Formats: sequence, structure tokens, C-alpha cells
Amino acid sequence: MAGNTFGTLFRVTTFGESHGTAIGGIIDGVPGNFPVDIDAIQKDLDRRKPGQSEIVTQRKESDTVSFLSGIFEGKTTGAPIAFVIENENQKSKDYDHIKDVFRPSHADYTYEKKYGNRDYRGGGRSSARETACRVVAGALAKQFLNAHQISIHAFVDQIGELKMSADAKFDIAEAEKNLVRCPLPELAQQMEELVKSVRKDGDTIGGCVRCVINGVPVGLGEPVFDRLHADLGKAMLSINAVKGFEYGSGFDGATMRGSQHNDEFNADGSTKTNFSGGIQGGISNGEPIYFRVAFKPVATIMQEQDSINKDGEEVKVSGKGRHDPCVVPRAVVIVEAMAALTILDHLMRNEALKIVKS
Amino acid sequence: MAGNTFGTLFRVTTFGESHGTAIGGIIDGVPGNFPVDIDAIQKDLDRRKPGQSEIVTQRKESDTVSFLSGIFEGKTTGAPIAFVIENENQKSKDYDHIKDVFRPSHADYTYEKKYGNRDYRGGGRSSARETACRVVAGALAKQFLNAHQISIHAFVDQIGELKMSADAKFDIAEAEKNLVRCPLPELAQQMEELVKSVRKDGDTIGGCVRCVINGVPVGLGEPVFDRLHADLGKAMLSINAVKGFEYGSGFDGATMRGSQHNDEFNADGSTKTNFSGGIQGGISNGEPIYFRVAFKPVATIMQEQDSINKDGEEVKVSGKGRHDPCVVPRAVVIVEAMAALTILDHLMRNEALKIVKS
Amino acid sequence: MAGNTFGTLFRVTTFGESHGTAIGGIIDGVPGNFPVDIDAIQKDLDRRKPGQSEIVTQRKESDTVSFLSGIFEGKTTGAPIAFVIENENQKSKDYDHIKDVFRPSHADYTYEKKYGNRDYRGGGRSSARETACRVVAGALAKQFLNAHQISIHAFVDQIGELKMSADAKFDIAEAEKNLVRCPLPELAQQMEELVKSVRKDGDTIGGCVRCVINGVPVGLGEPVFDRLHADLGKAMLSINAVKGFEYGSGFDGATMRGSQHNDEFNADGSTKTNFSGGIQGGISNGEPIYFRVAFKPVATIMQEQDSINKDGEEVKVSGKGRHDPCVVPRAVVIVEAMAALTILDHLMRNEALKIVKS
Amino acid sequence: MAGNTFGTLFRVTTFGESHGTAIGGIIDGVPGNFPVDIDAIQKDLDRRKPGQSEIVTQRKESDTVSFLSGIFEGKTTGAPIAFVIENENQKSKDYDHIKDVFRPSHADYTYEKKYGNRDYRGGGRSSARETACRVVAGALAKQFLNAHQISIHAFVDQIGELKMSADAKFDIAEAEKNLVRCPLPELAQQMEELVKSVRKDGDTIGGCVRCVINGVPVGLGEPVFDRLHADLGKAMLSINAVKGFEYGSGFDGATMRGSQHNDEFNADGSTKTNFSGGIQGGISNGEPIYFRVAFKPVATIMQEQDSINKDGEEVKVSGKGRHDPCVVPRAVVIVEAMAALTILDHLMRNEALKIVKS
Repeated sequence: MAGNTFGTLFRVTTFGESHGTAIGGIIDGVPGNFPVDIDAIQKDLDRRKPGQSEIVTQRKESDTVSFLSGIFEGKTTGAPIAFVIENENQKSKDYDHIKDVFRPSHADYTYEKKYGNRDYRGGGRSSARETACRVVAGALAKQFLNAHQISIHAFVDQIGELKMSADAKFDIAEAEKNLVRCPLPELAQQMEELVKSVRKDGDTIGGCVRCVINGVPVGLGEPVFDRLHADLGKAMLSINAVKGFEYGSGFDGATMRGSQHNDEFNADGSTKTNFSGGIQGGISNGEPIYFRVAFKPVATIMQEQDSINKDGEEVKVSGKGRHDPCVVPRAVVIVEAMAALTILDHLMRNEALKIVKS
Repeated sequence: MAGNTFGTLFRVTTFGESHGTAIGGIIDGVPGNFPVDIDAIQKDLDRRKPGQSEIVTQRKESDTVSFLSGIFEGKTTGAPIAFVIENENQKSKDYDHIKDVFRPSHADYTYEKKYGNRDYRGGGRSSARETACRVVAGALAKQFLNAHQISIHAFVDQIGELKMSADAKFDIAEAEKNLVRCPLPELAQQMEELVKSVRKDGDTIGGCVRCVINGVPVGLGEPVFDRLHADLGKAMLSINAVKGFEYGSGFDGATMRGSQHNDEFNADGSTKTNFSGGIQGGISNGEPIYFRVAFKPVATIMQEQDSINKDGEEVKVSGKGRHDPCVVPRAVVIVEAMAALTILDHLMRNEALKIVKS
Repeated sequence: MAGNTFGTLFRVTTFGESHGTAIGGIIDGVPGNFPVDIDAIQKDLDRRKPGQSEIVTQRKESDTVSFLSGIFEGKTTGAPIAFVIENENQKSKDYDHIKDVFRPSHADYTYEKKYGNRDYRGGGRSSARETACRVVAGALAKQFLNAHQISIHAFVDQIGELKMSADAKFDIAEAEKNLVRCPLPELAQQMEELVKSVRKDGDTIGGCVRCVINGVPVGLGEPVFDRLHADLGKAMLSINAVKGFEYGSGFDGATMRGSQHNDEFNADGSTKTNFSGGIQGGISNGEPIYFRVAFKPVATIMQEQDSINKDGEEVKVSGKGRHDPCVVPRAVVIVEAMAALTILDHLMRNEALKIVKS
Repeated sequence: MAGNTFGTLFRVTTFGESHGTAIGGIIDGVPGNFPVDIDAIQKDLDRRKPGQSEIVTQRKESDTVSFLSGIFEGKTTGAPIAFVIENENQKSKDYDHIKDVFRPSHADYTYEKKYGNRDYRGGGRSSARETACRVVAGALAKQFLNAHQISIHAFVDQIGELKMSADAKFDIAEAEKNLVRCPLPELAQQMEELVKSVRKDGDTIGGCVRCVINGVPVGLGEPVFDRLHADLGKAMLSINAVKGFEYGSGFDGATMRGSQHNDEFNADGSTKTNFSGGIQGGISNGEPIYFRVAFKPVATIMQEQDSINKDGEEVKVSGKGRHDPCVVPRAVVIVEAMAALTILDHLMRNEALKIVKS
């Protein structure tokens, strides 16, 4: 596939299918002698894992990560860090009914055509199970960033038509206190009910995740193609089910006038507004970075749909088993992870320029 | 900067500042023995050049491209193709007033802080003038794609609040017939008037470009990180002034249910709807690929704004000279170019897998 | 470290320390639907493993490879192939004596200084144990190459002063029939005795491996920097203990005249001589590719040497345990593996150019 | 070709054919605010240019470099630095006699077969003229390295059978005082006479260049694949006519015993001998780095040779015009340039790890 590596200097390469032996990855480009908090990594994994609440899939996977290399006596050594997460829930037989069938809006058809065959069990490599590996690498990246006072917080700001307004005040700490991970408690309650009702219909629903990154120093991002927001955008768009990305003013910016949108300077170099979303000319300007990510509704629904099989015959399919009615509550930590990988990579790329002191 | 190269196999590296000697680039990874239509490349450059109509900047640049290598007797040789576009409009003195000042929502501040100095003339490297090089490379890429019956068309679908509906019927050929490049003639007329009125105010306005790619075969895109839409997204987000990217159902997908959103199959493998935007699991599925790109209003306005200078003193700035009141009509061909580079690169990446016949 | 990935399209990323839990890797860019012969991979591993004969280290490791992903029902799926080899011989205590000491001509000192700490057990990441992972990936690459009638054979052509002449006739099949893997049986016998006598001295000795690649089609290699022999050279120089690389006429070419050295053409495009070593202008010309790789003597010797410890105090060190008196017999398969990875990667890179039929 | 870029962070991409309009390149990843000495760059170009002495080709090219971007008011800005060198000597007609003929041991045949066509004039892209661009980029890299007290000196240590011994004492300053660039004046005289006599025969001869790099700090190099010497080796092997590379003890190391070869430590961490060539485990250890590069005799000779044309007919060819009888005196500065690019790139890669202070 040749697309299983992310990052230029701080790089993660992942592997694993939904129902194979294990999933995992290798993190390369890791600076040495840095103490690793493995519990914190597991904690982020737990935020993503299935079965964590009544509004996500009821599949059971402990998603316990083991490290095979690169950490010695509690610290990184600079060697590549390999990790694995065993797959515990491998009843392949559950998937016999989709063996020869292409499920609508899944990757069954495209994988089969591109590669000539496919691991059909639970979507194989195309399953979002793969994102657990991103969470591991991202949680490690966060630790390096925290040492630079950089923090990353994502939360749900939309499910279906229920949406936080762009300028709503909120306490970020509230987000992790409810099942949908929205920092507005009342809205969170409505969202939760919406998800439950959607599930009752055997249906699924989309939503949006917003992410805020504080403490990023001025100077990260490499114009012209590797602008910081372009790499953040690619990072987010590489997550399963993502359909859109916007940062700062985003699509609303298209409706604005320059006189409204320009961020005037304060004397200290900070800006009076932040429609730029913390990035100007592709380079961080020291203001908070924020962006939104749109997720489509999960493709597996408990309703009958028209499809075809490998022989081109028309068939009916409908989902079986336990699936997410809405993916965004579990996606929050994946968004954070991809953001952390992107920011750390750019922190290192920027550091490389410091061979000249200006 | 280390970010001036785009692409994995078909790669373009660009150079040049707004008011330097020249801008240009090197295209590498070019297959040999392919006839090049240089007029077609110039024609795309003309679609981007300043001064082309009354609603864009009145600066005068002929933007004539010259090729220095890689084309022999009218054909590619496989050697890298270098090209230059001379800068004709280099009155550096015009820029003395911004020499020590950071213009709001430009890259002046971030470039100065990242690199320790900057070419302040017209924004230097951060100027959108650089995108002319993308147009050259993209126009060449289109020729390779055309030989595979792949066509790419972008057009303006929104300026300010004036917006085409997602399901509006249109004749793509209409877009190039009006100044704003919107395929709905009546809407185009309104947009044109809006841009003129914004200019009269000394202000600027944002907008959106939509792009449609037809004829892409099944199989392009490299999961999991180099999904086709992730690379398209990065390509678009790397264009100056872009704030957002969405493909297929995009942000509207977040409001939909799976039962609405899923694209059921026809017997021939095509789909009844195309909310997927021609890409499933990160791989093209043979349906038309389409996406939208949001542009913020141009930062240079003819109104006085609060800013600071290099010494941290508060100053007032306002734009001088000739600038675009709205960038999207000229951005259409840039969007096409970046799309062409992305698709051709993935066509080649996919071709590499064909050492095994399945 | 950021240097644990090899290849552009067919890419292997490795991990693991000598005495960690396991070593392994991820192979990415694998074409789908290709049947994998796992026994053949294990067989190549067995050619490298310790304890295989009386002239190599007597350490015991079964070096059994397990695959975690990317192979389904006996065939590649296009997904990344992850594999692990458990470390069975992990008596960390054996290494307490080198914990704080820098062994001469090992990587102890440089790793400690670069990364700020190190896994001192058996050399950690700097141990040649890591090369087992290259053998796995290379053995898979060979299978793809075999399907293109490309074969790769390496053998020992020098140990100490005992050396095959450049134009010696030999039967390549003989090489694997003796312990040193030299295809000249009499010379092999002398080499074996030399190695035994060196070991008796508690010393080690260097040697050279020659490699021949048959069946490479015309056209592999990407000038100007990614010449085929430049990538082969890097591949070989990345192997532990390698000090030199030469292809075709090599260093002897420096003594020759053009009139001797030029390879005149036969009518069919083949050449009368092959001082070019099958590569001209960085591109394969269809003749056999051959090259030589020089290995230094193993640094661990059973003799006392001057060294220093972490505190900069002078100390004496000498090797303990079971080590190779000469590394080249086991290195033969590593050279083949790196050659296979390089050739397959270039086969795929060349394939990508075929989007134009000339 | 996809192989025209060298480097990971400090990257140069080159273009240009022997008889095209111009050759040149783009240097990316350049730290900003660094003063550039353009005269020093031109001076290195002059060390490579044709016609500089009676023992090199008598072709006339002034090889004057012009910079198009990335340098403003005498300093780098961080933007990509583009440069061009015009081709002044473009009598294409001189090359009609080789238009349809494949010259022995040139790249005519392989380029034609790989790309389907070729620029036959003077070898086109395969001409060593391309290396002038490496000299420009390398000369800039040297300036960054000099600021870190790193110096690079190459010289000729062998022509034909005339060879400096490995342990000869010499004054490096002598090398640039004679035409062959060998630091032993007497040997240089003999070499000069040898080259003249070879030229009189209408023949050519090979040779070797040695390079010494002083002042490299401990810690450059990225195991396991991007070992410092592996990247140096690739850099050298990518130069036209190079057939071999060895560092430290090199091929002689294959004949040595560990007890001779190991570099014992002094109390200060330096080593008593330096068979390691300044690199251990792929990482610089603070000792001088040194290596040798073997060049084959130039393929163009003034003698008649058997060849074939595009139609597969047997023909006779012999060189015309003005060619080098021996390439190594002009190659010295190319070796230095590639070494500088490699070391600077690794200096930056290592710098990136410094986000953690150990």
C-alpha cells in the first residue's frame, strides 16, 4: 500500500487488520533519553476502545498495548519503538456473510479491485480498528509536546444537526465528563439522546470534532507545500470516515470580508482576533490553533441495502453484530493523536533549522 | 523551508519570490517520450495571470513560461523539466512602506520570526505569485492524465453568501465564459457585481471553488495515510488563502444518517448516489471525484488597520497598489493544477503495483 | 533514529534490540494477491542464524519468524506485512560487565553520546542481530523477483588474504555446500582453516562477499542521484561491519585505460565484456550485475584492550561469551537480502513510468 | 527520472542537459538569515570547470552561476535557492555522428531503452556536466559547515597504478598547487606525465580521490539504514564514473584481524588509531572522517570501437572533440561537494533530535 507511514522526522508506520493476529506499529525518529509514561498511553487507548459506553459499539476489546523495543529502563533510547495490540475478538465466521459481497460505502469494492484480493473479515485493513495504533503513537507524541508546554484537546462539537456555535464559551474539562465528549453539558445530553434514537432505528449519524492546540511556538510549518495546516488537514483526512477539514474561520471565511477577517496585531505580536486559527502563511503565529473535522455516518447500518457480489450479481446486505451508531465520541482521541504527530514532526523539522542562530 | 516539493513519484519543486528575478520549478519523475503541448501550458497560465479582467488585480505580468531542460524535439526525455517565469513587475520601492511592518493576516510576522529575516517585497516567498509554478506543472500533468481519459474541471461555486446549491444542474463549459468562472450565468452576474462593490469599498471577499474529476480509474489512493482524498486535501490546503476542504458530502455529511448517505451499488459496480465523492476507503471507486475548497478574503485591503513594526511599535497600515478584491476566479486553475499533480502521482504509484498481475 | 526504513516504494522498516523482547519489521508497498512461500523465508533466515556451524558463533537462537498481518489465505493483500522474531537468548546479566564501558570499535560510545543513553545489552540496536529482519524482507522480495526471472546469489570471495581472483571460474551451486560459503571448494577449505586458527587466537578476521544478480531487465535505476549502483552501495554499506563497496571493475577500474575498460557492443545489444557490472549511467543494461562488499573483522575479541568507561576512566575490556570469529559466511544472505530489496524497489519505480507507452 | 533530488532536510534538486539551454538546481531546507559568499561558490565551480589546465578537456565553458531566489540582501531567507549556469558551448551539430549510435560504456543505450528516447547531444542528462550543479550546492553547504568548524578536503591519491600509500604523510595544502591535485608533489609530477602520455595515445585512464573531513562532532548518522558512511557512499557512487567507495580501513580491512583493527580509546574518548574512519555503528565519533572513491577511465576515447546503432546494425565509433583523458583532477571538488551535502544534511537531522535535552 505504501501509504502506511506518517511523518517526516517523527514517523509512525502501522500494520494490522481488524481480525488478524494483532495490530501495531513502529515509531521512528524518536529522540533518546526521554522518560515514557506508558499508563498515559494506555489511558488514551481506553478513550478510543470499543465497549466503553452505551452509545458506542458493544464489541469487547481490551486494547492493551505492549512495547517490544526502543524503551529501556523507562526511557527512550533513540531506537525505533515497536508496539502491538493483540486482537482478541477474532470470530472470523461472523464475516462469512460478507465474504463475497461489497458493502455500500465501505472499502470492500475498492480494495478488491486495487489489490486483486482482500481480507474481508471486519473490513481487514480498511477497518477503523487501525486507528488504535495512531492513538498509541499520538499519546507518545503528546508527552514530548507536553514537555514544551504544548497541549492538545479535541471534543465533539456537532452530531447531526446539533451543533455548538463557533463562538460558544465552554470549559474544555467538561468534554470528558459525558459520553459524547461535548463540553456543553446540555447539548451533550441532547446529542446522547439523538445517538440512542438513531441506534434504535438501526441507523447511524455523522458529526464533527473540534480540536484546539495551545502553546505552539511561533515558527512551525514549512511553506509552501508543507504548510502546518496542510499537514494537519492531511492528517485528519486520513482518518476513517472523515469528509472535511477546516481551520480558523474555515468555510465561514468564504463569506467574510477582509476588513472583518484580518487579525489585527496587539503590541506584543499577539492578535486581537484569531480567524487565522493560529497559522499565517502556513506557519504557526503563537495564537491557539483550532480546526474542525467532519465525519460521515458509519456505513454499517442494520437496514437492508442494495449491493452486488464479486460475480456482479445483485444482492441485499444489512449489518450484523455490534457497531457504532455514531463514531465521533471515540474519534476525539484519534483527532488529538494525529494532531500531536503532526505538531511534533513540525517541531522537529523546525528545530533542524537551528544550526544557524539568527 | 524544506517544504517546496510536492509529490512522491511525479514531483514538482518550486522556487521564487514575488519580486525576485524569476519564479520557476523543476518537475521530476517525468516518463520519457511523451509529446508536450507547450501552448496548452501557457493557456492555463493565462487563466491565472493578473490583469486578465476587470475584477482581478490590474498588475501587469505576461507570465510567460520558458523551459530549460527535459524536453527534446517536442518530447519529454525522462530528465527533469526545469522552467522559469521572469518577474517583470519588480518595482521594489513600492514596498518600502512595509519593509519593517507586519501586515495583518499576512505571513510577514511568521516568516520574520521563523527565518530571522525576510524578503519583504510583495510578500516574497509567501506571495501567491508562487502558484503560477504549480499551474505550469499541473498543466503538464493534465496532459498525461488526458491520455488516460481523465479530465479535471474547477469552477467558482461561491463568493461571499452567493452560493450554488450542492445539487444545482450546470453546464461546466459555461464557467470559462464569464469573469468569475461560475457555470451558472445568472449567479455569475451577481457574483461579478458583488466583487465590484467590494472593491469599491476598498475591501475584499472570500469564496469557494468546486472541482470535478472525471475518468479516474478504480484503484488510486494508498491507505492508510496516503488516502486519495487526504492527498487532495493537503494539495488544496497548501494553496494560499485556503481555509477548508471537503469532498463528497463533506461537512453536510456530518448531518446525515447512514441510510441516506450510503451509496448503494448498481449491478455494474457503479453507485446510485455519490456521497462518497468518488473515493471509498481512500481509494477511487470509478465515480466522479468532487470536492470544494474554501478561500478566505484577500488580506490586503485599502483600509487602515492596526499593526506593529519590527521594533514592536504600534503602527497603522493600509494596502497600496493593485490587488485582487476576490481571489477565487484566478484560483480555479490553481485548484485544477494541484488536483492534476495529485492524481497523476497516484496513477504512477498505483502503476508500480502492477509488477504482479492478479 | 529516523533511519530505520529502507526503500522508496517497496519499503521495510525494522525494529528491535539484541536483547529486547523481539525484533521485527513492517514491509509496506507490497503488491496484493501474490502467493507467499513462508518456508523459503525461514530457509534464508536459517542461512543467517547463529549456531549453524562450527565456524560461527555458538549462540543458540532458533530465529523463527511469525507474520502478524498482510498475508491472508496464503497471499499478500496489499496491506503492510508485519513480522516478529522472538529473542530467546536474553540473559541480560551476561552484559553487566559492559554496562558502563565503551568497547573499542563498537557503537557503544557513539550511541551513548548521540542519544544520551543506550541499551547496553549485547549492543542493543547496534547489534547485527537486526539484520535478521532484513533477511525476512529480502527473502520476500526475492519471491517477487523470481517471478520476473531475476535471481540473486552472494558468496564469500575473500577471507583475510585468501581471495578468489576476479576472473576465477566457479559453480555458484558449490558455495552453499561448505561452511564458509565460497564456491571454490579448495579455497573454501583453506578459509575454514584460517577462521578456525583465528578463533583459536581469540581473534577475528575480515573478508569480502561477492554478489551476482542475473536477469535484471534493461532500465532499472533513476539518475542522477538514485543510480542503481548508488542505491545498491548504500544498501550494502548499511550492513554492520561493511567498510567498502565496488561494482563491475571497481577499484581495479582506477588502474585501467578506457580502451581496456569500455564494454563494446554485440549486435543484440549485449556487451563483449562487462566491466560496467551490468549498469551504465546508473541504469541496468541487461548484463549480469555484480559487486563486492568488504567486511572488517568483528570488533569483539577475546583479548584485553584499552578502553574507557562512562566516567572517562581508563579500563581494560575483553570479549566474553560466544562470538563470530569471521562474519562473512553469515553475511552472504544479508547481502542477498539488501540486493533484493534494492532491485525490487527499482523494478517498481521503473514500472511507474509505464503510464506512457513509448 | 525521479532521482534528481539529494538529501532529506537540506535538499538539492538538479536539472539540465549537456547541450540544453542551461543547467541548474534548487536548494531547499536552507536555514534563514545566513550570509552567503557567492565568490566562494564560483571559486569551487572554477576548480571543476573544463579548460582550466592542459591535462583536462579543452572545451571552454565559463560556468558562471546566477542565483534566482532565496538570497536577499546577501543572506539566505529560508526560501528555496534556485541557480542556473548557462550552457555556452552548444554546437549540437557536433553530435550528429552519435545521434543514432550507442557509444560503448556510455549511458546512450540504457537511457534510450528506459525512456524511449534521449537527448543525444553530448550525453544529454547523463553527461558529467550535471555535476557542476552539485558543486554549487556543495559550496553553499560548506559555508554552513565552516561555521561549525567542519572542513572538507579531497585530493587525488591515485591515477592508474600511481598511488599514494595509505599512511603517506602529506600537506593537504599542496594538493591545489599542481594540475592533478595530489598533495605529494613528486607523485603529482609523475601523474601529470602519465595523463599526458595517455592522452597522446587517444586513451583515458582511471584514478582515485581521497577525502578527509575534520571537525565533525560526535553523533551524526542515523542507524540502521542511514548510517553516515552509507549516505556518504551513496553520495559518491552517484557521481559519474565512480566504481567504488571505501571508508576507514576499507577493503584493506577485509585482510585484517580484530586485534589490529580495533581502535582503542584514549582517556578523552578519542581513539589511538582510526581504522574506523571516524564513524562507528554508522555514527560519527569525533575522529577525522576519511574515505576513498574509485573512478573508471572516461569512456570517450579517440580510438575506433565496435558498437551498434538504434536499428541494431553494427557500426564503428570513435570520440571526437575535446575530452578529459582523466577525470579525477576535476572530480576532487565534486567529491567535496557531495560530502558537504551529506554532512550538512545529517547535521540538521541530528539537530532535530535536540528537542529533548539529555
